Amino acid sequence: MPTRFHDWAQDVRDRVELALNDWVPAHAPAGLGDAMRYAVLDGGKRLRALLVFAAAHAVGGLRTPAGQQAALRAAVAVELIHAYSLVHDDLPCMDNDVMRRGKPTVHVQFGEAQAMLAGDAMQALAFEVLTPELPQDDAAAQAVLQARMCRLLSRAAGESGMAGGQAIDLASVGVPIDLPTLQDMHSRKTGALLNASVVMGAVCGALGEDTPMWRALNDYGQALGLAFQIVDDILDVTMCSTTLGKTAGKDAEANKPTYVSLLGLDGAQTQANQLRAHAVDLLQGLPWAAPDALEPLVWLADYVVSREY
Amino acid sequence: MPTRFHDWAQDVRDRVELALNDWVPAHAPAGLGDAMRYAVLDGGKRLRALLVFAAAHAVGGLRTPAGQQAALRAAVAVELIHAYSLVHDDLPCMDNDVMRRGKPTVHVQFGEAQAMLAGDAMQALAFEVLTPELPQDDAAAQAVLQARMCRLLSRAAGESGMAGGQAIDLASVGVPIDLPTLQDMHSRKTGALLNASVVMGAVCGALGEDTPMWRALNDYGQALGLAFQIVDDILDVTMCSTTLGKTAGKDAEANKPTYVSLLGLDGAQTQANQLRAHAVDLLQGLPWAAPDALEPLVWLADYVVSREY
Repeated sequence: MPTRFHDWAQDVRDRVELALNDWVPAHAPAGLGDAMRYAVLDGGKRLRALLVFAAAHAVGGLRTPAGQQAALRAAVAVELIHAYSLVHDDLPCMDNDVMRRGKPTVHVQFGEAQAMLAGDAMQALAFEVLTPELPQDDAAAQAVLQARMCRLLSRAAGESGMAGGQAIDLASVGVPIDLPTLQDMHSRKTGALLNASVVMGAVCGALGEDTPMWRALNDYGQALGLAFQIVDDILDVTMCSTTLGKTAGKDAEANKPTYVSLLGLDGAQTQANQLRAHAVDLLQGLPWAAPDALEPLVWLADYVVSREY
Repeated sequence: MPTRFHDWAQDVRDRVELALNDWVPAHAPAGLGDAMRYAVLDGGKRLRALLVFAAAHAVGGLRTPAGQQAALRAAVAVELIHAYSLVHDDLPCMDNDVMRRGKPTVHVQFGEAQAMLAGDAMQALAFEVLTPELPQDDAAAQAVLQARMCRLLSRAAGESGMAGGQAIDLASVGVPIDLPTLQDMHSRKTGALLNASVVMGAVCGALGEDTPMWRALNDYGQALGLAFQIVDDILDVTMCSTTLGKTAGKDAEANKPTYVSLLGLDGAQTQANQLRAHAVDLLQGLPWAAPDALEPLVWLADYVVSREY
């Protein structure tokens, strides 16, 4: 990955970390704020936040302070949803995992009940972050963006998206499933939120949903989401727990189907590479905001298939 | 309670039940839809939905089809949030309750993991219901209402509201707490969502937040929320489990502080009656939408303190 990618990504991560630090309240009662902050601060690749900013950049959404603010709020909201899903996913009644991002999981640190409440509060906070009080001068225009953001995020997080994917995952342990079913599960469980990150970025530039650019970004998001999951499955068998910051090899141990178990290691890597190329192809030949407008989205496609954790 | 109240309430309940039946998807994958529907359909007093419609009526918000639709969506959303909170609250790591609304709790029926996911998906669905695709003709005006609804609901559900109150509740088991702390806990845990129901109803009539009527409705909501919780504590010691549809006497058994333990049974009933009178007083002397505009809100104040389950 080029240095310019790392600089760009670090700048976005720094901004998102600062905003999370400001907006996830330390003062929430009875230790709830501590558990929420433990779950979301100082952790992760922030891929979803990067996708928001990359897509916002592509459509010229970062040219105004209002657009930058919308991107920051969208980025924080998707990271909150992602982090809450990990907290709940790690609970004893789900994956029963004790390590995440190199630290004890939230329920190990704060207890099961507090972990569940922290996840619940983080989901609510995501929608709170998306809907700040509107300044009077352009309230109607801002409200249109806010409503679109809430619409996209709630659909990605809910039963047709992330939560639905987790239900399929739950039902699939030890059950032989085929590639289309595996793909459906992941397109909901992980893909829906990655995809929402891309299109929420596009909303920052007020891009309409009936435009070729919207469709291209949507398809890019879906291809990238799938590639991401395939690489996740590859890393789960090729990397150790310390590198991953979470327990490695759990899927194979739980007899969960993966892309590697269905396609083999080489087949999975080939498919990931093809999806990367496809995702980038989808974006070509459209009137983006500037000559370099696609650069971050292309970087992220490379990053998703070349990442090592 | 007058017959007209029962007729009005039944009409609202029927509309909300139909909408929940339409909008909580039976087809959600891997049994998730079944768990969600089990949790929210055919149950409860629908007090929050009634408050939405009563407040919407008071401000003339039900005079247009758009306002009626907004009220219905707000009512469904608050009932979804309420129902999800009960599902999570009943889990073994929280109250570990096996009976709710006269039926086995969701985790008893569907397992803990599915119950947690169903709750998560119901919270997301609440925001999905609040943000339908906007018809082109008055998209901006509708977006303003949608954004306001999401703002009010997310704040009521999150760390400063319901989830925060549950964290205080969690930390208070077996710990002696005083009346102000008990009041703070309940104003968040139960009061915030009851209050949100009232003001979301007011949003249906596009009532501004800097008006005397908004403040009156807000204060009414707070007084009513407190009265509701006091009566809940009274019923917990005076009624049997069959009447309540949930396990009675659990708070005393868990050594949780209640209004009854702090004020005595008579003192608690007196306070509930005073709050009812105060709530109704707050609404007087303001230019409501019609001569009978306040009727449902007054009925609900009576209902909250006279209910028997």
